[in-house]
Amino acid sequence: MSPRIITLLTDFGTEDYFVGAMKGVILTRSPEAVIVDVTHAIPPQDVRAGAFTLSAVYSNFPAGSIHLAVVDPGVGSDRRPILIEAADYLFVGPDNGLFSIVLDRVQGAKVRHVTNTNYFLPDRSSTFHGRDIFAPVAAALAQGVRPGELGPIIQDPVRFDFTECELLADGTIVGRVIHIDHFGNCVTNFAWNQLQHLLKAQPFCLRVKDHEIQKLLRYYSEATTQLPFVIEGSAGFLEISVCCSSAARELKIAVGDSVQLACIPQNSSNS
Amino acid sequence: MSPRIITLLTDFGTEDYFVGAMKGVILTRSPEAVIVDVTHAIPPQDVRAGAFTLSAVYSNFPAGSIHLAVVDPGVGSDRRPILIEAADYLFVGPDNGLFSIVLDRVQGAKVRHVTNTNYFLPDRSSTFHGRDIFAPVAAALAQGVRPGELGPIIQDPVRFDFTECELLADGTIVGRVIHIDHFGNCVTNFAWNQLQHLLKAQPFCLRVKDHEIQKLLRYYSEATTQLPFVIEGSAGFLEISVCCSSAARELKIAVGDSVQLACIPQNSSNS
Amino acid sequence: MSPRIITLLTDFGTEDYFVGAMKGVILTRSPEAVIVDVTHAIPPQDVRAGAFTLSAVYSNFPAGSIHLAVVDPGVGSDRRPILIEAADYLFVGPDNGLFSIVLDRVQGAKVRHVTNTNYFLPDRSSTFHGRDIFAPVAAALAQGVRPGELGPIIQDPVRFDFTECELLADGTIVGRVIHIDHFGNCVTNFAWNQLQHLLKAQPFCLRVKDHEIQKLLRYYSEATTQLPFVIEGSAGFLEISVCCSSAARELKIAVGDSVQLACIPQNSSNS
Repeated sequence: MSPRIITLLTDFGTEDYFVGAMKGVILTRSPEAVIVDVTHAIPPQDVRAGAFTLSAVYSNFPAGSIHLAVVDPGVGSDRRPILIEAADYLFVGPDNGLFSIVLDRVQGAKVRHVTNTNYFLPDRSSTFHGRDIFAPVAAALAQGVRPGELGPIIQDPVRFDFTECELLADGTIVGRVIHIDHFGNCVTNFAWNQLQHLLKAQPFCLRVKDHEIQKLLRYYSEATTQLPFVIEGSAGFLEISVCCSSAARELKIAVGDSVQLACIPQNSSNS
Repeated sequence: MSPRIITLLTDFGTEDYFVGAMKGVILTRSPEAVIVDVTHAIPPQDVRAGAFTLSAVYSNFPAGSIHLAVVDPGVGSDRRPILIEAADYLFVGPDNGLFSIVLDRVQGAKVRHVTNTNYFLPDRSSTFHGRDIFAPVAAALAQGVRPGELGPIIQDPVRFDFTECELLADGTIVGRVIHIDHFGNCVTNFAWNQLQHLLKAQPFCLRVKDHEIQKLLRYYSEATTQLPFVIEGSAGFLEISVCCSSAARELKIAVGDSVQLACIPQNSSNS
Repeated sequence: MSPRIITLLTDFGTEDYFVGAMKGVILTRSPEAVIVDVTHAIPPQDVRAGAFTLSAVYSNFPAGSIHLAVVDPGVGSDRRPILIEAADYLFVGPDNGLFSIVLDRVQGAKVRHVTNTNYFLPDRSSTFHGRDIFAPVAAALAQGVRPGELGPIIQDPVRFDFTECELLADGTIVGRVIHIDHFGNCVTNFAWNQLQHLLKAQPFCLRVKDHEIQKLLRYYSEATTQLPFVIEGSAGFLEISVCCSSAARELKIAVGDSVQLACIPQNSSNS
């Protein structure tokens, strides 16, 4: 059997000892584990950003992988540590909504409240559960401890609605920007699968800030001007881009900004 | 036997070829080594910052791990490359104080001057000993070369006093901020073990810049206001925090700033 | 046989899911692969910067390593995915000049157009070939698929001349700054091997911006003043440095700036 993969997704940054400490704990308790960094640059305490990034990457890993995610503003309080069995993966982290999108996507996921302190570090801080609770729990799972040994199933994990959009009376769909990537592409919460037929079938107008975008491209270098365009993003959402530049900077877009998508009536240019 | 773990802690950043080159050298000479990044974001040439971060993380790793640390403003000069046997770990790096806290904590550590050039790269630059000397020495250790083969024991490694505090006549203890973490928490050099009884037993006042902090919390989200508080940090030192924000930014604290801790006489409020 | 090493060099940054997704795909298809990050901080879409960094590091890895490099402004267009067999290494990435220096250095390298879609992900985006094409191709190679199975040899990979310098009538050599490293050292495209005899044999003057540098040092801490100096860099090029500081910041040097190297006639001080 291949060694178990443990992925790490946190808001810890990489300049401190935090990530190294988690890895040390994992390797002490599960020497054969293969640790893979997803990212440690989730904006501090931004649970929604963590949820998005996790949702975009977890299914690329082999079945059996353990996804350890820690964005945890409530560390030390009574927020629960949880463990999720979803499809072929295990997820470990705080119960604060971080796994909302995974729970949306995977039918029949089991969520457990991790209560068995036998698998925690014996001396636990109140400020670093990534090292003291979550890392050793992930290591235990990698060593073959069954999820049922860690705690009981719960029905009420914290969840938030991530992809909610509003449908106005005139047919306009209102969503928002949920992520800005390294290149400045602005990821909306419009699921590509649900909108692609509409976008390809007729003229549309996507409004964001003061801008109106009417062009859909298939790939970045298809752009021949500096006008912004929309594109199918690699995480499954509609994205706003500008050729060879940062759409976020050029269009002054920030996470949370509203986007409105409307179809243009075919005869609109004659009115 | 599990493969040997080699951890890396440097000020090299991650945007250059430096870290990759070290890893390539290690894997060429010790193909089974498991390399773990602690951090490469120690501020350039800041040996004290490196010493702090190393001290906070080394003991989380399995016995037998090799900690390779390179913050090395004197690279190419006659500063010695050293190897330390301390508790269950090996440490490799420059002799410039980087291992001071480890040496403080581990009684009976042996320090060796690495003089056996047989384990260095044959062609050595004068500017990149991380790749040319320290990485291959760590790889040799991972391959089972005994420390004694690498050089003689020395008694005079460079050390600096990291946790020194001043005790004033009125009982005030004066220390300083030694690290600001990714979240803006300000780590003082007040060891939690030595101060926790004092802090829990009676009212206190910690002064930093123009601020007076009188609240000790157990975990971050226990805070109900934006007033700063102190907390037991996960590295074993007292830290200054602000709820849901960066204490460093809110209080304008920088590394090196003085902190003064005084007990408040029980009748002080009557005076 | 040791597991195959796959190195990653990209401009993807580390704050998104991009790098994690590539690693997940690799480990799904080649569970024993050892993945090593070189860097993900190549400036966005800066193919030349990627070419430099790759050239400085690839040969430090064990023979048989697979170097996966993705700086890919033309993703989704008809730019070709390529595979290079050069010396003991394999290189995978886009055909846009990223491997120019490798091709300059390795005589007889074979370049293939990767056309066999059987090794790509079945569902491919037009915006993320790192995940959908290059990662699975690298994994296939790590699994022992022979290069010849992936596509035909081509003779016309995109190449640019990286180390071109101009020789003026008066003997001045004109080059440029090709990289600024984490410490602010400015790497020129003057190959150390070709210039070291000249620099050591007689007085010289290197002009960059308004500065004239006449000092060659062997190691950084040999500097006793804040005057800039040149030094043999660890990537094989002449570098411009300032003691204990950033030469780029102190001298206001940017990538692309011209540098002029002239010998000083022995009697010049008498004129």
